[in-house]
Amino acid sequence: MDVGAVVVLMDNLWVSIGAILVFFMIGGFILLEAGSTRMKNAGHIAGKTIFTAGIGSLVFWAVGYGFIYGEGNAFIGLSNFFYGDYSATDGSLTPAVDFTFQVMFALVSLTIAFGGFAERAKLSVYVIFAVVFSAIIYPIVAHWVWGGGWLAEHGKQDFAGSTVVHLTGAMAALAATMILKPRIGKYNKDGSSNNLLGHNQVYTALGVLILWVGWFGFNGASTFGVADGFLGFVLLNTQLAAGAGAIAAMFTVWAVTGKAEVPTTLNGALAGLVAITASCGFVEPWAAVVIGIVGGVMVVFSMKLFDRMKIDDPIAALSVHGTVGVWGTLSNGLFAVPALSTDIEWGQAGLFYGGGFTQLGIQALGVVASGAFAFAVSFIVLKVLDMVIGLRVSEEEEIMGLDISEHGSYGYPEQIAIEDTKLTTAATTQN
Amino acid sequence: MDVGAVVVLMDNLWVSIGAILVFFMIGGFILLEAGSTRMKNAGHIAGKTIFTAGIGSLVFWAVGYGFIYGEGNAFIGLSNFFYGDYSATDGSLTPAVDFTFQVMFALVSLTIAFGGFAERAKLSVYVIFAVVFSAIIYPIVAHWVWGGGWLAEHGKQDFAGSTVVHLTGAMAALAATMILKPRIGKYNKDGSSNNLLGHNQVYTALGVLILWVGWFGFNGASTFGVADGFLGFVLLNTQLAAGAGAIAAMFTVWAVTGKAEVPTTLNGALAGLVAITASCGFVEPWAAVVIGIVGGVMVVFSMKLFDRMKIDDPIAALSVHGTVGVWGTLSNGLFAVPALSTDIEWGQAGLFYGGGFTQLGIQALGVVASGAFAFAVSFIVLKVLDMVIGLRVSEEEEIMGLDISEHGSYGYPEQIAIEDTKLTTAATTQN
Amino acid sequence: MDVGAVVVLMDNLWVSIGAILVFFMIGGFILLEAGSTRMKNAGHIAGKTIFTAGIGSLVFWAVGYGFIYGEGNAFIGLSNFFYGDYSATDGSLTPAVDFTFQVMFALVSLTIAFGGFAERAKLSVYVIFAVVFSAIIYPIVAHWVWGGGWLAEHGKQDFAGSTVVHLTGAMAALAATMILKPRIGKYNKDGSSNNLLGHNQVYTALGVLILWVGWFGFNGASTFGVADGFLGFVLLNTQLAAGAGAIAAMFTVWAVTGKAEVPTTLNGALAGLVAITASCGFVEPWAAVVIGIVGGVMVVFSMKLFDRMKIDDPIAALSVHGTVGVWGTLSNGLFAVPALSTDIEWGQAGLFYGGGFTQLGIQALGVVASGAFAFAVSFIVLKVLDMVIGLRVSEEEEIMGLDISEHGSYGYPEQIAIEDTKLTTAATTQN
Repeated sequence: MDVGAVVVLMDNLWVSIGAILVFFMIGGFILLEAGSTRMKNAGHIAGKTIFTAGIGSLVFWAVGYGFIYGEGNAFIGLSNFFYGDYSATDGSLTPAVDFTFQVMFALVSLTIAFGGFAERAKLSVYVIFAVVFSAIIYPIVAHWVWGGGWLAEHGKQDFAGSTVVHLTGAMAALAATMILKPRIGKYNKDGSSNNLLGHNQVYTALGVLILWVGWFGFNGASTFGVADGFLGFVLLNTQLAAGAGAIAAMFTVWAVTGKAEVPTTLNGALAGLVAITASCGFVEPWAAVVIGIVGGVMVVFSMKLFDRMKIDDPIAALSVHGTVGVWGTLSNGLFAVPALSTDIEWGQAGLFYGGGFTQLGIQALGVVASGAFAFAVSFIVLKVLDMVIGLRVSEEEEIMGLDISEHGSYGYPEQIAIEDTKLTTAATTQN
Repeated sequence: MDVGAVVVLMDNLWVSIGAILVFFMIGGFILLEAGSTRMKNAGHIAGKTIFTAGIGSLVFWAVGYGFIYGEGNAFIGLSNFFYGDYSATDGSLTPAVDFTFQVMFALVSLTIAFGGFAERAKLSVYVIFAVVFSAIIYPIVAHWVWGGGWLAEHGKQDFAGSTVVHLTGAMAALAATMILKPRIGKYNKDGSSNNLLGHNQVYTALGVLILWVGWFGFNGASTFGVADGFLGFVLLNTQLAAGAGAIAAMFTVWAVTGKAEVPTTLNGALAGLVAITASCGFVEPWAAVVIGIVGGVMVVFSMKLFDRMKIDDPIAALSVHGTVGVWGTLSNGLFAVPALSTDIEWGQAGLFYGGGFTQLGIQALGVVASGAFAFAVSFIVLKVLDMVIGLRVSEEEEIMGLDISEHGSYGYPEQIAIEDTKLTTAATTQN
Repeated sequence: MDVGAVVVLMDNLWVSIGAILVFFMIGGFILLEAGSTRMKNAGHIAGKTIFTAGIGSLVFWAVGYGFIYGEGNAFIGLSNFFYGDYSATDGSLTPAVDFTFQVMFALVSLTIAFGGFAERAKLSVYVIFAVVFSAIIYPIVAHWVWGGGWLAEHGKQDFAGSTVVHLTGAMAALAATMILKPRIGKYNKDGSSNNLLGHNQVYTALGVLILWVGWFGFNGASTFGVADGFLGFVLLNTQLAAGAGAIAAMFTVWAVTGKAEVPTTLNGALAGLVAITASCGFVEPWAAVVIGIVGGVMVVFSMKLFDRMKIDDPIAALSVHGTVGVWGTLSNGLFAVPALSTDIEWGQAGLFYGGGFTQLGIQALGVVASGAFAFAVSFIVLKVLDMVIGLRVSEEEEIMGLDISEHGSYGYPEQIAIEDTKLTTAATTQN
């Protein structure tokens, strides 16, 4: 074995660990989504995250991976279905390591999409949409950018998936949110909105922390190796952007509303992470700080804007992964550094580094094309589902909660027993 | 230093990280067990998991490791007590890395065993049984299979411990469950049973997710190295089986009871993981899916069967780790692939790959011998303990909860204060 | 690329993973601190941990790292501000990997410090003190010991930071605790104290487990590499000391109070970890067990002592990180082994290994100097803050809880709605 082969083994090791970290993010989403919603739906939210991850894994194995990385055309890959390649490494990543890393990204995008379904969609809809999203929607966008598709040919830069993972998931969430309509009690007849508070901010905070930890695998292992110790640089940018996002969101919401709202602050950290995802391997640390700050400020106003538009987004998936996913993708066209880019052999300088508007334009094209595709397919699929089986549980079921209606028992049977509907209602405040 | 020595260093690194991941599984068990039981016992359950892990660590250091890997005979190892070898690596894993990995497996098995004690055993029993299990029961089975003992000589294949870790723990749990008898209120006079609902499904789901994450170390680092990037293949099989188990269990319980019960679905994911543990390095991906599906279906019926037999198993340890541990071990004798087996130098083809009934028979022998030994020793030890000090807390203590009776304060002092016994009772439903 | 360069890459990989594990500890602290305090403050505690980690990251990037590792003098470093070095590795750790590892240590120390502020400090105080601590207090101590400062010149041995991280944080916590005064309801007029029980022992236990997991990165990656597989030895010592601490604390509190208190047992595990932090790479396994046991016993009596002194320390930060941090530092002067020390090239034998009192004296000097500096600067800064803006929220705000007063909504809006102050009061017991 020569030295080069040893380095490839190490690349395999790092990407495998990265895959494990990315899967851990699913645990972060369980906490984030459950914590941001109400007690009567908590068991459902936690449980559906696990089984949709199961569905996503099998579907991605059956067809999703092949649609991304199989031999095919500029639009879609068309081989490698029912993935079973266990050949050893041969000068690059072992195929099975690559598969494991990729499936985790698909699961994260799927879980983001389901954020838009929270507290009102039927269980069967989760089952069906998990299949469609993991088979078609995510793989096609991923093929375009990462599988040698037409956006890759145009030089789209998306280090770890601001577009592919976050924006795609958020567009599906947007389609769901629009068709499902707001939750009961969210908007009043006079047009004002109520804040249906999440039931557990400790969950939310721990969820964000776990996502942050997992993101080091998400971004860091998107180096696909350890060459030059470059992974450290990616981790550093990730840390700075996340921290900057949290602070920016906290001070912004503090200034705007007079209260340093905890959920908004936490969304700021996620916004910093989403924003830096496209650029963590392309920009200097000070730019990571700027990208994170802008993401953190943006998420606050985006949440307010969606609320004013009466788009009910219980866990802020649209703002965190959508709005900020767009910013993350575009910011790459502003801040990407030629030196770094050259060093790692894929990359084009951004506007502020003498690259002109070329890369910015390509990034914008990527956003529009990926976002439009993900939204359109999601919308059509969900609209058809809505007509055929109905997306939303009945009013009675929504009020009793999805734990009971979809699964037959409360997630918190002892704690719910001592409540009644009046108390749940009392836990809302008018914005 | 030559290239081979560098690869060995990398093996050390991966196995060390694997050890950390396996230890993280203890956190998954804290959540799984606490979430699956009632609020009045939650502090006790969480706390005892930590200190029994402490006891297990010290006992394993003092004698357990020596009983497995020391120089000895086909039945037991007999050297290396009070482990203190800090020599550097010499062409294979550093001894201290190996020790660290092994101690974590012992702790997982111990924690599984304690699943059978939940909500009614005395604190002192946990202390004593932790010593016995970590000193004698687990090490002897582990010696037989992994320490060069008599089952190893027969060619028993157990990649990461479906038998050694899961079945052994489950057999101890079974002995405990039988001697302790069902919890107060579990069975009615007419023979029907009540579902004493766990108090927090978010905990349960997050616990399963953490176990799933940790299992990548459990299975993946049981490669003991990074050669050929083979670890990726193990991770891929693990992911598919876990996902398949979750889905299979959900649809099965949905079909059978009309409700997609969250706890059962979650147990399905664990069943998939337990099932693939013996075979993750021996089978093809499609077989991993099949093994996971069968495990997921099996766990549903196993839970119902134990309930009908009036064996009260609060966290389904017997079904998840016992029944499915047997399936996992046997399935290796069906699906093991010769090519893969040859490639990694330990292995014999299963029934479906032309290996005939040889390996299946050896696997069955392993199940019977290991299971019988673990059950018999556990039963005798616990029976003696029961006669001498009594295993079970008093009826009054059980009703007030072990948090108060064994530790002097509730785990949830503020939330418990607003409840009363009637409400707790209200949170049960008749099956 | 030569073999040596490959090993350096592997060192980069391990230290990067270590950084991720250390950051995960922040999640452990969220759970530990939230679980050890009351429901009405839980959202605040969880949220402030995230945004102070953000502040710490940016401040450490701007100036903290430079004050530790920049070119400077025996007291402080003075270059490398606004860290932006993304050069590749050159025979040692990539600069960005080192930065990422170091920033996580600073965040852990900061989070420990804030333990002393719990349940009564203003949000703005957190913001300001996070800046001061991350810019000045932590970096100067770290420079003295790890950055080539005057204590390093004297041969201070602190493998992973019993002094630098734990004692420094605890001294800031002590200053805060003294100035803030005890929480309302903690001490009675007759001088007796009430036990203001933490609201969730499952959080606390899981928090400790996560800290334990993260500590493998904290201690293990403080090897700064994988040479000789030495990391396994560090992990082994860490595991034994943690387990020993948990057991020792449980039996001690059981013997002293008649109840095996869960929170105290959990603090015992942390005490074992803090104690071994200075010595995990310097001592034999049996000594790790002894160091852990002494730490576990010590933490029980330290908690009682501080309570008797009417120093209200809600999450036992002073005892766990302070008292035991001192013990950990000193024990190195007792148990450090020459062979190991020589092998790894930094080290001096302790008293029990023929080193006489030399190293013990140096360790004691380090404790006194570092502790006094951290305490003095913290005390002065906080005293000034107290005079200018006031450290503590109003009595009314403290009673309603910081979730509402500082952030505008409860962390548990549904659960709090069904409580009233009387119930909260009922959840306290007199010591």
